[in-house]
Amino acid sequence: MIGGYMGRFLRVDLTTQQISNQAFSEEVLKKFIGGSGLGAKILFEETNETTNPLGPENVLIFMTGPLVGTNVPNFGRYQVVTKSPLTGAYGEANSGGTWGTMLKRAGIDGIIITGKSSSPVYLYIENKKAEIRDASNYWGEDTYDLDLKLKEELGNDIVTCCIGPAGENLVRIAAIMNDGKDGRAAGRCGVGAVMGSKNLKAIVVKKGNLRPPIVEPEKLKESIRNWAGKIRKNTELLSDYGTAVGLETVEAIGDLPVKNWTEGSFPSVEKVSGEMLKKTLFVKKYHCAQCVIGCGREVKVESGPYRGVEGAAPEYETIGMLGSNCLIDDLEAIAKANELCNRYGLDTISTGAAISFAMEAYERGIITERQLGGIQLDWGNAEAMIKMIHKIAVREDLGYLLGEGTRRAAEKIGGLAQELVVHVKGLDLPAHDPRAKYSNALAYATSARGACHLNAFSYEFEDGISMAELGYPETLDRFTIRGKAQLVAKLQDLMALFDSLTGCKFIIFGLGDETIKTIVEWLNLVTGWHITREEFLEIGARIVNLKKVYNVKCGLTRKDDVLPYRILSHKRGTGGAGDNLPHLGEMLGQYYEYRGWDEFGIPREETLKKYEII
Amino acid sequence: MIGGYMGRFLRVDLTTQQISNQAFSEEVLKKFIGGSGLGAKILFEETNETTNPLGPENVLIFMTGPLVGTNVPNFGRYQVVTKSPLTGAYGEANSGGTWGTMLKRAGIDGIIITGKSSSPVYLYIENKKAEIRDASNYWGEDTYDLDLKLKEELGNDIVTCCIGPAGENLVRIAAIMNDGKDGRAAGRCGVGAVMGSKNLKAIVVKKGNLRPPIVEPEKLKESIRNWAGKIRKNTELLSDYGTAVGLETVEAIGDLPVKNWTEGSFPSVEKVSGEMLKKTLFVKKYHCAQCVIGCGREVKVESGPYRGVEGAAPEYETIGMLGSNCLIDDLEAIAKANELCNRYGLDTISTGAAISFAMEAYERGIITERQLGGIQLDWGNAEAMIKMIHKIAVREDLGYLLGEGTRRAAEKIGGLAQELVVHVKGLDLPAHDPRAKYSNALAYATSARGACHLNAFSYEFEDGISMAELGYPETLDRFTIRGKAQLVAKLQDLMALFDSLTGCKFIIFGLGDETIKTIVEWLNLVTGWHITREEFLEIGARIVNLKKVYNVKCGLTRKDDVLPYRILSHKRGTGGAGDNLPHLGEMLGQYYEYRGWDEFGIPREETLKKYEII
Repeated sequence: MIGGYMGRFLRVDLTTQQISNQAFSEEVLKKFIGGSGLGAKILFEETNETTNPLGPENVLIFMTGPLVGTNVPNFGRYQVVTKSPLTGAYGEANSGGTWGTMLKRAGIDGIIITGKSSSPVYLYIENKKAEIRDASNYWGEDTYDLDLKLKEELGNDIVTCCIGPAGENLVRIAAIMNDGKDGRAAGRCGVGAVMGSKNLKAIVVKKGNLRPPIVEPEKLKESIRNWAGKIRKNTELLSDYGTAVGLETVEAIGDLPVKNWTEGSFPSVEKVSGEMLKKTLFVKKYHCAQCVIGCGREVKVESGPYRGVEGAAPEYETIGMLGSNCLIDDLEAIAKANELCNRYGLDTISTGAAISFAMEAYERGIITERQLGGIQLDWGNAEAMIKMIHKIAVREDLGYLLGEGTRRAAEKIGGLAQELVVHVKGLDLPAHDPRAKYSNALAYATSARGACHLNAFSYEFEDGISMAELGYPETLDRFTIRGKAQLVAKLQDLMALFDSLTGCKFIIFGLGDETIKTIVEWLNLVTGWHITREEFLEIGARIVNLKKVYNVKCGLTRKDDVLPYRILSHKRGTGGAGDNLPHLGEMLGQYYEYRGWDEFGIPREETLKKYEII
Repeated sequence: MIGGYMGRFLRVDLTTQQISNQAFSEEVLKKFIGGSGLGAKILFEETNETTNPLGPENVLIFMTGPLVGTNVPNFGRYQVVTKSPLTGAYGEANSGGTWGTMLKRAGIDGIIITGKSSSPVYLYIENKKAEIRDASNYWGEDTYDLDLKLKEELGNDIVTCCIGPAGENLVRIAAIMNDGKDGRAAGRCGVGAVMGSKNLKAIVVKKGNLRPPIVEPEKLKESIRNWAGKIRKNTELLSDYGTAVGLETVEAIGDLPVKNWTEGSFPSVEKVSGEMLKKTLFVKKYHCAQCVIGCGREVKVESGPYRGVEGAAPEYETIGMLGSNCLIDDLEAIAKANELCNRYGLDTISTGAAISFAMEAYERGIITERQLGGIQLDWGNAEAMIKMIHKIAVREDLGYLLGEGTRRAAEKIGGLAQELVVHVKGLDLPAHDPRAKYSNALAYATSARGACHLNAFSYEFEDGISMAELGYPETLDRFTIRGKAQLVAKLQDLMALFDSLTGCKFIIFGLGDETIKTIVEWLNLVTGWHITREEFLEIGARIVNLKKVYNVKCGLTRKDDVLPYRILSHKRGTGGAGDNLPHLGEMLGQYYEYRGWDEFGIPREETLKKYEII
């Protein structure tokens, strides 16, 4: 057993119903850590360009990391890795809540699922052991109700990770949800559809108290004690107002998507901000396991048409995509939409993207009320937006196509529809506009899973935070392209480490200019390793390269490292970035060069050798 | 009869073998002039998105303009308009020589060909009359030999316009050639394949001396007399060294394509320049009919492996695409390749693009010697390049696919091949690199027929000439994007007029800052119209919009107004523009706005009304 790991990874073949244990050598763990790093390695070895993402041959990997299950703050997430049915390439999504920590405390580091069950099942995990159980009675349940029903049957000391009807229906924007009405989501890349394709409804973990071994427990405790207060202090605003904190600032600089990315300002932004949420629907804060920040919140709608909404609040991304991008400024409606997405198990980002796309297509007469099953899908029509969420989840009318993801939907609809979808590699842009922060253009274009704001997290370093440890003692000008290629590459390496340790990136706000130093220290104290900062970052680069190589294997090249024309050539004219368009080509060339990739975005042989991938 | 026109357009239905006359009202001629303007109008009315470019339903239009057949200098060209089998959208190509002038002097303004003959035929035109004649004996002849054989049969006072074996074989990069071994080509968009698809081998014109009516003959004569000497003087260098004049300068600023657009300099450039050509292979100058410049040249190779080459010299574009872009610096080999393309009836630009693409694919192991029928297609291998021309024309081995055009070939080959093709809308980039002159990026992206250097001719206005008449009293900085959108739009309007009057754009070097004024004057003197400069330019804008609307009808939108990633993101590192990449997105948005097109590049209703298109 290696420090930080219990050394037990489960391998579950749902076709044969076989469960076995798997361990990885210390060498492998040192090279790939866990989370998306280890997941990418397994995915690379077990699938290829011919793998049907929704076929039994796909592999669905749930991973934690060495700090999960310890008391290290904010490293309690889990990562899902699979071949994405949305992009046909490398897919990953991660989630907070308590499930990751509890999986680890049940003695399991990760689960590798292959095959397909002939009927609905769930996986039950308790004290290092797992069994496959019949889930016929649970099939069709939404994620909130499922959690309640499982608790009725199994007791309250369980944590569920599951799909809702969207995943069952193989909706390609379906999420994997955990922690019931706390509504935590591994949202992106259609991971929920992969789970659905395997007839796997849930993974239920019985809470345990197994703790991963820690090589230097006292020193770790001291470091955490030393940091916890500082982190709390540095993240106060986030803690006070949640992820939608400062939404008005985000809007003011032109970073918020408005009207399917066509407009640069959203005049009623104050109606949907984190501050407004706190004043109105807020019930209490929510902390994920191990978290010392508490950016989550619970809300309740007490009256009006959306009365009954209760549980997880809409996050920033949800407000951006289902709110402003649909011209909707009714926070209660957005809370309702959020709950619906959570219950159905839908990615709120891609759902918002699908609906804002459909609203524009409807306005332009490209799709009709009849195709929408009688819905008048006008801009700002919250009621219609909510109806569309139902249709997407149950695959009704045009909701069927939208559930295939905007790229496929637009291809089927044809013509101008293809100009209205805003995605990279098939994954819809999240709610940060690259026209407002140029590094984000490159980050979206080059992220392995498609348009992803968390892959580089670089927009936070433009007109925001700094990181002297990576050579950025000051925040960078958001409208320059100079130096952005390096910034994005360096941050992608670091963020790949967060995703492999399965940590929360918000801790950067807490650790500030000692982020890397501190995380390396924690990792070493837990594992007993003696990794330097340089070695640490090199692991990140290895993982980024591995994901890239997987994408190359799936046929992706430079032609896929692009941005939609709306972002590249459409000036919005209004707001704080109304006249700005990023020059992606320039940054992309510099980025490939810095990465040691050729002009097609393919890692050179010497690069792969350098990172010991070949 | 209207001044400048004989009022006789032939309509030839090759299916029914019916020939009829057609006339256009003065209103229509004032709106569309002739050439590509009138051709676009006919194409728009008679074909649509379902038209198979190589089916009998396509229309193949040969057009002259009102100044053709007069003594107006350099307005003796003809224009071919059709739906392109290469792009699936608006196609046009034009050519000089004497055929256009002679068609007019045989009393014909244009020919509209529909249907398909059941066996090979040619069209014989003499003194306002046309007949369809059997061409079975001529099928398979190359364009030089065909010209000789037709002259043997019909006498020396004929001019031929025809296809070679490439057009017969439906090679999608086949040209229409005229004037036998003088090798004049309507090269682009695969117009030769359309002619082949109709089983039409040639259009033979018996020289006549019918002169189009001129309303003010004396004033016209005086103006021409006044200008001829000045034009000659202002174009002396072009006349002395041909279109390859100053090739070393072109190379020095990074405008020359090298090694399939990957490198920025071509060290042995002096071996293939116009100056070297004059010193070595040059026999004599060649003037098209009505021309006072004489940029054409005849060459002869007296010895060595390419002995026997005799006739048209390779032009600048040919030297760029079959020379430097294939790393070939053997002028005699290029002359041989040029003659072969002419004889087979192949566009030298797209043939060069296809071979340079194949050379790179071969080097990278994407295609093999076996696929190439045993050819070792190494960079700079002139012998292999020449063998590939044969294979493309006769559709042998990989030559078959290359004859489908690089876009289709790369799609079939798949994978990385798609990254190596350098085209817009399926039409290969000609030999001017947009990384060296930024307006050219926009011009290539927005030209209706795909990547076209003549559509805006704007690269001449960056680091070259000026035009106060359009608001550019000084040449523009080539590396700025400021003002380039307007420049390109204005020049496209003007060039559309050149293509509708079927004039030679080199006369701009002769007329300088009085270009527009003088052409309008000539047009009015010939036709008796009283068109102002503003009205004139508005006709140009109308024609540009009409071509665009045709493309929109064929399904093209903003997604097609793009550049290949190699141009957008690959810095060449060497030469006079080694570090430069144009920001297309920025220019494209400005261009659409200036044009009155929406963000998808679709003309707004008010724009179409303004230009009386709807």
